[in-house]
Amino acid sequence: MAEDKAETPASNAAPVTLTVCLTCRNEGADPEATRPGTLLHDALKEAGMPEGVTLRGVKCLSACSRSCTVLLTGGEERWSYVYGDMDPEEHVAEILTGTAAYAATADGLVPWRERPTAFRKQSVARIPPAAFPSEE
Amino acid sequence: MAEDKAETPASNAAPVTLTVCLTCRNEGADPEATRPGTLLHDALKEAGMPEGVTLRGVKCLSACSRSCTVLLTGGEERWSYVYGDMDPEEHVAEILTGTAAYAATADGLVPWRERPTAFRKQSVARIPPAAFPSEE
Repeated sequence: MAEDKAETPASNAAPVTLTVCLTCRNEGADPEATRPGTLLHDALKEAGMPEGVTLRGVKCLSACSRSCTVLLTGGEERWSYVYGDMDPEEHVAEILTGTAAYAATADGLVPWRERPTAFRKQSVARIPPAAFPSEE
Repeated sequence: MAEDKAETPASNAAPVTLTVCLTCRNEGADPEATRPGTLLHDALKEAGMPEGVTLRGVKCLSACSRSCTVLLTGGEERWSYVYGDMDPEEHVAEILTGTAAYAATADGLVPWRERPTAFRKQSVARIPPAAFPSEE
């Protein structure tokens, strides 16, 4: 059932954006070569986005030490997530699976066991919705 | 002039929220002791927020390896910022200065030289506004 859920965009939810840092490069990488962030963006573009998801490339998500970095956002009701240490050659399928699961939620909170391994292990940060109340 | 600017909330801008992770604790810290994240939240509460800024505590920003972590958000027009490695005993004044400077902007982009050192050096990630266009 989880698989079905992950492929169906949440009804009445805002569109989702998968943002990829275009300028990310790994430590020691040739600064003149195409940036791994750009390669990741291009690989995701080539693979195609899940339904209800838009791909966006930006020049720097300021998470440089966790290159390559991606960001999931989806309107005022959803938590946002930043994931790092993504490899353009390894993680495209997992990013797409995790993005579809995120798009299938109303609040961005994908159950832990439904998250791909890269999303479980490579969290950089999550951002609560603006209306999320203080828990102090 | 920069100092004056930093103390004046941006006109026509959304309110700003400074979110502090309450559950952050540093590696090796006593798990039974009050969490450094909670201490940081309490110290910021005691110090008082700049004009136009609300303090919010949340249980986990999923940036655990960069504990303590804070987040600046401020409506649909501003970039959001996550900063890590904050020390409740060292960084309260810098966090408040940086938060005031952020609140004084319409887009969240504080000029580099006006950012406190901790914000310059301890970025975890930044999140573009939803309407920010793809730069691919």
